[in-house]
Amino acid sequence: MVGIVGAGQLARMTQQAAIALGVELRVLANDRRESAARVIPDAHIGDHRDLADLREFAKGCDVITFDHEHVPNEHIRALIAEGHRVHPGASALIHAQDKAVMRERLTAIGAPCPGWARVASLADVEAFAERYGWPVVLKAVRGGYDGRGVWVCASAEEARGPLSGGAELIAEEHVPFEREVAVLVARSPHGQGVSYPVVETVQQNGICVEVIAPAPGLDEGRAADAQHIALTIARELGVTGLLAVEMFDTGTGFVVNELAMRPHNSGHWTIEGARTSQFEQHLRAILDLPLGSPAPTAPVVVMANLLGGDDPDVFSRYEHVLAHDPEIKIHFYGKEVRPGRKIGHVTALGTDVDEVRERARHAARCLRGPVHA
Amino acid sequence: MVGIVGAGQLARMTQQAAIALGVELRVLANDRRESAARVIPDAHIGDHRDLADLREFAKGCDVITFDHEHVPNEHIRALIAEGHRVHPGASALIHAQDKAVMRERLTAIGAPCPGWARVASLADVEAFAERYGWPVVLKAVRGGYDGRGVWVCASAEEARGPLSGGAELIAEEHVPFEREVAVLVARSPHGQGVSYPVVETVQQNGICVEVIAPAPGLDEGRAADAQHIALTIARELGVTGLLAVEMFDTGTGFVVNELAMRPHNSGHWTIEGARTSQFEQHLRAILDLPLGSPAPTAPVVVMANLLGGDDPDVFSRYEHVLAHDPEIKIHFYGKEVRPGRKIGHVTALGTDVDEVRERARHAARCLRGPVHA
Repeated sequence: MVGIVGAGQLARMTQQAAIALGVELRVLANDRRESAARVIPDAHIGDHRDLADLREFAKGCDVITFDHEHVPNEHIRALIAEGHRVHPGASALIHAQDKAVMRERLTAIGAPCPGWARVASLADVEAFAERYGWPVVLKAVRGGYDGRGVWVCASAEEARGPLSGGAELIAEEHVPFEREVAVLVARSPHGQGVSYPVVETVQQNGICVEVIAPAPGLDEGRAADAQHIALTIARELGVTGLLAVEMFDTGTGFVVNELAMRPHNSGHWTIEGARTSQFEQHLRAILDLPLGSPAPTAPVVVMANLLGGDDPDVFSRYEHVLAHDPEIKIHFYGKEVRPGRKIGHVTALGTDVDEVRERARHAARCLRGPVHA
Repeated sequence: MVGIVGAGQLARMTQQAAIALGVELRVLANDRRESAARVIPDAHIGDHRDLADLREFAKGCDVITFDHEHVPNEHIRALIAEGHRVHPGASALIHAQDKAVMRERLTAIGAPCPGWARVASLADVEAFAERYGWPVVLKAVRGGYDGRGVWVCASAEEARGPLSGGAELIAEEHVPFEREVAVLVARSPHGQGVSYPVVETVQQNGICVEVIAPAPGLDEGRAADAQHIALTIARELGVTGLLAVEMFDTGTGFVVNELAMRPHNSGHWTIEGARTSQFEQHLRAILDLPLGSPAPTAPVVVMANLLGGDDPDVFSRYEHVLAHDPEIKIHFYGKEVRPGRKIGHVTALGTDVDEVRERARHAARCLRGPVHA
């Protein structure tokens, strides 16, 4: 029995892999209508911030893992101290929960980082800008995701808002980059590691809208550099399970932007596009089973996120998309449609990047329907 | 909401496809530990032979379909009369439930059949043998599967046992064949049809042990003939959903052996081996959505059934198999291990038939473990 804290789409898609592996899942959900609770019989209802709920949930689980990073680190430490197997462990996961701890550690192990500093006042930010120039990127140390908790400040004036919010912040150098890429690796407790191909991630307003695998035009040597960075981080931080490393590609090198220790949006393409999906790989890793082949199943794979539009009746457009492209793969997350919300994704496979991107975009655009913004 | 009557491995694997399509499933199970009831939250407990249980189950389902052929045809007619959408319908499904009805209808539409006749006495069987020679194949008209309800009788003496069992029987000519093949097709209520590639099925003791896709050495013209036979049967019988047609390949032609109207063991290879799995295709067909591409994802795909051995602890051998072949795909059905029981399957993909077969066989053999027969 594997327990997943959180019942979003990552836990939902993990169920597809668990069915084949013969692994039974339990999820800790906020309510029974959550994405994963709709497809997993053993759904416990509770609060992931409450240690008593976590303890009750953990009873009978062989391994505990996560759908998100929001479980308080001290609760994870408590569960481990009480004898539960938790992957990733508290001492690894803290690096995906606290950006200051992450930057300190990455700097210590020599992973490429932007200039950064803890900042608490406008004077701190101005001193940082003096050294690295404007704009300065301010980030909430804890709790941000999908662009939330990140502010690109062109001037001291623009830094006032984030500083007044009361959240602990770090400042980061604004790295001039050509594109964003991500490397997904898996590491098992006994130390086996594998890396998926480097992918390009296309962001709009801080939300990933498209992933292209492999990253177009990236030569083998540079791809190996990026994979080496991610595998090194996984090893040095003692990650067990998946680690997604989001990086800026500066054209000559890579700079680490963010870490996630779970299946990641940049890896959804692996469901059809790799011999082992990220969801199967995460289960294999946390169960300390031999890892599966990350080899791609097609020369080009493109995943496009499906964001909610203004018309919630997405199913009326479903037929058109399926009829238009009999090879497109659609994944719905069982979520109510709200404008801008990630409600699913589509995956296209093929040989020509432009053609495959256009197919994925067409499907995502059609399914989204009208947007009156 | 799609209701599946029966909660075996076919319903279980349908859940993997339903999760992506955003379709909620309900199953009618004998108990909560059944294969599909372990992975589908909405499991109703009831008896598929009981009309009251079926009615209760059907409430709120948009479409009803089947995991097996054992629901009494009159109950299906009753559900349809009461306004339920059922795919396949009673008038189609009867051909997969009653072998005499099936033979009559296939003969009428000109599908290639062995010589056959209804038989009720030894005299009937001897008269049949006079015309077609020994051995004579006796089949129970209803209820047989996996070799049960089929007797190959070399003499009148051997026919006594089956005849004395009280079951309604037909006699069939023993067709000399080179191998067995199967064609899986899908047809939607509005009449769209697609065919998967013809596969070779390898049987041992009446149980399918291996499926090779596509059938090795089958030339394009003959493959098209076999697909044409299956698509014609689907159209003429008004099948909605999947139809698996098992055939004898005589080297020059094909003779229809059995029909199934649901996902079929001969189609498990499509999960990784075709752009659209048979489980997704069945859901698309019964929901009258456009059908998906049946194109294969690799030049050769081999599926090997995993039969229980004498050691029930299959998981102890799991690690070895995963470590040996990082590309092998294992599917467990969540069933208790019993000798000879289908408890899962493995799938291997590649380019060389011999190499891919060996990989699949090795994995299935290792997972089975010791057999002291």
